[in-house]
Amino acid sequence: MTLSIGIIGLGFMGSDHVKRVATRLNGARLGGVADLKKDLAEKYAKEYGAKVFDNGMDLIDSPDIDAVMVVTRPHETHEQFVIHAIEVGKFVFCEKPLTLTAAGCQKIIDAEVKGGKRLVQVGFMRRYDPGYIEMKQAIDSHEYGEPLLIHATHRNTAVDETYDTSMSIIETAIHEADVLHWLLGEDYESGTTFLPKKQTKYTHSKLHDPQIITLDTKSGVHIDLEVFVNDRIGYDINCSVVCEDGIINLESPQVTSVKTNDLKRQIKIPVDCTERFKVAYDHELQNWVDDVQQNKVTGPSSWDGLVAMVTCDALAKSRDNNAERVSIKLPANKPAMYND
Amino acid sequence: MTLSIGIIGLGFMGSDHVKRVATRLNGARLGGVADLKKDLAEKYAKEYGAKVFDNGMDLIDSPDIDAVMVVTRPHETHEQFVIHAIEVGKFVFCEKPLTLTAAGCQKIIDAEVKGGKRLVQVGFMRRYDPGYIEMKQAIDSHEYGEPLLIHATHRNTAVDETYDTSMSIIETAIHEADVLHWLLGEDYESGTTFLPKKQTKYTHSKLHDPQIITLDTKSGVHIDLEVFVNDRIGYDINCSVVCEDGIINLESPQVTSVKTNDLKRQIKIPVDCTERFKVAYDHELQNWVDDVQQNKVTGPSSWDGLVAMVTCDALAKSRDNNAERVSIKLPANKPAMYND
Amino acid sequence: MTLSIGIIGLGFMGSDHVKRVATRLNGARLGGVADLKKDLAEKYAKEYGAKVFDNGMDLIDSPDIDAVMVVTRPHETHEQFVIHAIEVGKFVFCEKPLTLTAAGCQKIIDAEVKGGKRLVQVGFMRRYDPGYIEMKQAIDSHEYGEPLLIHATHRNTAVDETYDTSMSIIETAIHEADVLHWLLGEDYESGTTFLPKKQTKYTHSKLHDPQIITLDTKSGVHIDLEVFVNDRIGYDINCSVVCEDGIINLESPQVTSVKTNDLKRQIKIPVDCTERFKVAYDHELQNWVDDVQQNKVTGPSSWDGLVAMVTCDALAKSRDNNAERVSIKLPANKPAMYND
Amino acid sequence: MTLSIGIIGLGFMGSDHVKRVATRLNGARLGGVADLKKDLAEKYAKEYGAKVFDNGMDLIDSPDIDAVMVVTRPHETHEQFVIHAIEVGKFVFCEKPLTLTAAGCQKIIDAEVKGGKRLVQVGFMRRYDPGYIEMKQAIDSHEYGEPLLIHATHRNTAVDETYDTSMSIIETAIHEADVLHWLLGEDYESGTTFLPKKQTKYTHSKLHDPQIITLDTKSGVHIDLEVFVNDRIGYDINCSVVCEDGIINLESPQVTSVKTNDLKRQIKIPVDCTERFKVAYDHELQNWVDDVQQNKVTGPSSWDGLVAMVTCDALAKSRDNNAERVSIKLPANKPAMYND
Repeated sequence: MTLSIGIIGLGFMGSDHVKRVATRLNGARLGGVADLKKDLAEKYAKEYGAKVFDNGMDLIDSPDIDAVMVVTRPHETHEQFVIHAIEVGKFVFCEKPLTLTAAGCQKIIDAEVKGGKRLVQVGFMRRYDPGYIEMKQAIDSHEYGEPLLIHATHRNTAVDETYDTSMSIIETAIHEADVLHWLLGEDYESGTTFLPKKQTKYTHSKLHDPQIITLDTKSGVHIDLEVFVNDRIGYDINCSVVCEDGIINLESPQVTSVKTNDLKRQIKIPVDCTERFKVAYDHELQNWVDDVQQNKVTGPSSWDGLVAMVTCDALAKSRDNNAERVSIKLPANKPAMYND
Repeated sequence: MTLSIGIIGLGFMGSDHVKRVATRLNGARLGGVADLKKDLAEKYAKEYGAKVFDNGMDLIDSPDIDAVMVVTRPHETHEQFVIHAIEVGKFVFCEKPLTLTAAGCQKIIDAEVKGGKRLVQVGFMRRYDPGYIEMKQAIDSHEYGEPLLIHATHRNTAVDETYDTSMSIIETAIHEADVLHWLLGEDYESGTTFLPKKQTKYTHSKLHDPQIITLDTKSGVHIDLEVFVNDRIGYDINCSVVCEDGIINLESPQVTSVKTNDLKRQIKIPVDCTERFKVAYDHELQNWVDDVQQNKVTGPSSWDGLVAMVTCDALAKSRDNNAERVSIKLPANKPAMYND
Repeated sequence: MTLSIGIIGLGFMGSDHVKRVATRLNGARLGGVADLKKDLAEKYAKEYGAKVFDNGMDLIDSPDIDAVMVVTRPHETHEQFVIHAIEVGKFVFCEKPLTLTAAGCQKIIDAEVKGGKRLVQVGFMRRYDPGYIEMKQAIDSHEYGEPLLIHATHRNTAVDETYDTSMSIIETAIHEADVLHWLLGEDYESGTTFLPKKQTKYTHSKLHDPQIITLDTKSGVHIDLEVFVNDRIGYDINCSVVCEDGIINLESPQVTSVKTNDLKRQIKIPVDCTERFKVAYDHELQNWVDDVQQNKVTGPSSWDGLVAMVTCDALAKSRDNNAERVSIKLPANKPAMYND
Repeated sequence: MTLSIGIIGLGFMGSDHVKRVATRLNGARLGGVADLKKDLAEKYAKEYGAKVFDNGMDLIDSPDIDAVMVVTRPHETHEQFVIHAIEVGKFVFCEKPLTLTAAGCQKIIDAEVKGGKRLVQVGFMRRYDPGYIEMKQAIDSHEYGEPLLIHATHRNTAVDETYDTSMSIIETAIHEADVLHWLLGEDYESGTTFLPKKQTKYTHSKLHDPQIITLDTKSGVHIDLEVFVNDRIGYDINCSVVCEDGIINLESPQVTSVKTNDLKRQIKIPVDCTERFKVAYDHELQNWVDDVQQNKVTGPSSWDGLVAMVTCDALAKSRDNNAERVSIKLPANKPAMYND
């Protein structure tokens, strides 16, 4: 059976996923699309032979759609679609962040628990990146002893005027909030967010850029993370795990280099996440489709979405309180369905 | 429509393609398999819900199979299957080398021309590798001026006792014979094969290893190629195009690096072609499937298979004549269907 | 005139400098040596045709010695020799740290000011490393805009049982305390030292390893520094300056790489500071000799020694107070002779 | 004793050596200079307190000069000065090539043998480069088995109108002619020079650029060498030794890298030999000075100068005869003094 997938939201990430589903995934096809911008929905529907829906709810309800992807902006809109998909019993893939509040995540978890079955996967694609996977294998093998420290950077080329100080955490650092505790296989104990006095001239009055985040895990691994969203040099993701017997580094994929007539050897830096993590997005969604074909999901769950959000809330609180150390407290009762 | 693909030959490459077709390609499914080893065919058929055929000819003839992949060993067996597929009018993807003789290639071309339509694609996957594609774009852009020289190495970790001196050209160098003239967009004028006196202790009496090949193009670009199939260090493919205003290098993809407790920084070398060119194989076959869905093929043709074979024949002649320079003469009349 | 140099202290660094002065510097020769271990002094004196002195004071007083190098351990012993050299009016090069207390540094400064002439140079060799120099030129050129952040690591292969928690700052981080504010051309505002809960199994009860230090400059540049002195992977110095229009990275020099038969490409990591900074030490002392030949010193001064020590004191205070932010306050009255 | 060195020839290399001797070498000082351009000689003499001589012969004869460096252009002029230095019994360092003919080298050898003592060192500085030394140690250790192949490139940024086709061998490839047989510890058997049809637009009518050279050693190691003297990208020296159990690569030293705001990571390429081999030149001459202080020379000898010239002659003959393979035959009777 070829899975008919419906995509709600056709912006930057949504349109990237449309192409992925329609032309690159095995066992899936683009069944339908919905977007507030009707012409956009019609364009993609025509290009890939999919159905246009008036709105996301109709798409979810349609018998022509087997599984749903929620890629809407602003992110506040995720919650309603995800919960409706759960209500009608359809598998739903939701781009990160799952919602913008811990309470919202909890509502989704409650709905899912009530239904008695995991239906939601959150779009933390880095867990599918070959580099992070190789790092996790190296850590889990204990070949290099215990992890002690992580140094990470999350740098974007540029952001627009709508991107403000809070988004450095909730839009950007959220990726590390998820992937680093997954990498280490443990929860966070506390975190801080520090706003350095000196900022780039490329930022604007609503955005403090760059920002410095730290996270400490339960076992005591210390993490520092630079979030810099107007770096001008490209989408520059680095991660170095310092262990007792070795240091494991993430490398940015490169396929060529050039020696140029200005006495330079040059290597490209990716321009954005869809270039840098193209393979990760492909693997993430192929894996989701394969799972759904077998009537299950195994990727990042609603609980992972909640963990990321609780972490972001603590980091935001620290930022608003002179970088004081803030505890990261997860809800006590983790529903059994999230313990794989 | 999902394309039903039948695969003949389930060895090292065949089994890799089985998995690719069954689990990674969009718009295709594994329809059937055939192999002299029946248990192997049954295993894959069961795993992926495909049909087992008694032999390749039956698979080709079957109405359940839309398109055919020929991955048989020894390579002498390619010809019969490819020609039969042409006769019944089915698209056929054939792993390289298309055949082991120029005459064999010509027979396939004649059959295809008689049928009046391109049906054959040859498995020169490097044309789909992101690295070679980026190099070709750089060359075609003329940003670095005219290409003058190419230095290349084709190194394998190890080969077995059945691999002999002739195979360094026909099995191994054939990849560069294809991809380098594609990269430059022109034909070869002449070539040489030199057997250095000193050989690796890991070779055997039937195999001269390493070997040094040169090729000169019509315009005068000079190429040197090291073929070393028992290098012990891994599958190590290098290609450096020296231009008037810059040098373009192929880089081996890497996703992590490690600093280890013996004062070393280490980066992995791929072990074989399926690791190094995994993405290239995926793109090659996705592209083929997309084309076939549209009732055409645009990848490497029977003519490209012939060009590679004529080139290999010249290199073999040089090898057998003290590395003398041998002209590379393509048949005069290139059928119009091969001029894209 | 060839300068006759006397060296007091012939341990790890002292013996390295003996060889440097005797065999690599232009315009200098090894005039004399002194060490509590007499046989060591006699060995080097014999090897290089120098005079043995009973003690450092005699060496300083001797008319056969034109200029003095103080390389004694423990570092508490530096102060007396440096002050005596000032008293007799001889140029004196003192390995870092100048002394172990700010008060000690101030005494040296007072003596130097009283004498009315700069005579002291402190062994902050990194200011002479080609990498740091290239970084400083890049920063000063403003080609990449304003510096915003620095990420640094100072990693040693291993330390012995005498190395304790305090030495991570005063022995190790002191190098960055000096070189980073020199790189940026401004003073520090505040600093913190954080002791992560998780430590390497290779440490011992008196040493907390690794440690995380931060420094913020007057203008607001934020620095983080990992100090890890039992990393097992080698002497691994990294420094990355994040600017508004580019990121400048220090690279560890390498002269060869090797592809080995375990599918690895390998690059060496230096084992210790004398390997990593060999060129820097050479340049540092050649520069000092050249200066002294012209009756002056221009390298790191007693004031720089004091700045480093005040910085270290603040970091130690932070470490002992749960990583609280501690102001870094330099004495108000900087003697004019230290304003070059 | 500080050695008084006299330098004849103050062009590009000569002036570089003047600075080296006067300011960087231990145990030596600039005693005197001579050049046809008198003002140049006077300038350097004044700057470094050296004596000006009317001509090279007077410099050699002067009791104020302990040892002589011959750095004159054109290279034909080397011979007379070297022979005169031998006649008066002074150690003489001569920049490569020792002379421009094998006969000239033989005359020098004859003079030296007649004197009964090695007095000449030839300026093959690469033998003192840390990279080549590390490669030689790796080869000699047999850790990677027997060497089988060498791939090398010798690329210059640009040359002027006086540089013609013959100089690609005698000026440029001569470095590899020397260093590669030293690296392997054996003599050459034969060589070829091939002139590819396609040349860079930056060359002129008297210069064929690039050129491809091959050398085969007695044991059968095969070497290929690209000589490209108008590459525009910088002074780009590469050398890769393919062994049975590993591949050893020369790396170009780098001390920083930069990520720039055009999505690039950049590493510098040196502009010329004095930048790339600065350390090698320093070590070469420090070693020579140290040797001369002990009344001997141990560096590259007149015999090495002859070997390089005989090799160049064979390569030139091949070039003039359609790249035919030409034997490289050294004189049968190697004087005993050249067997260290």
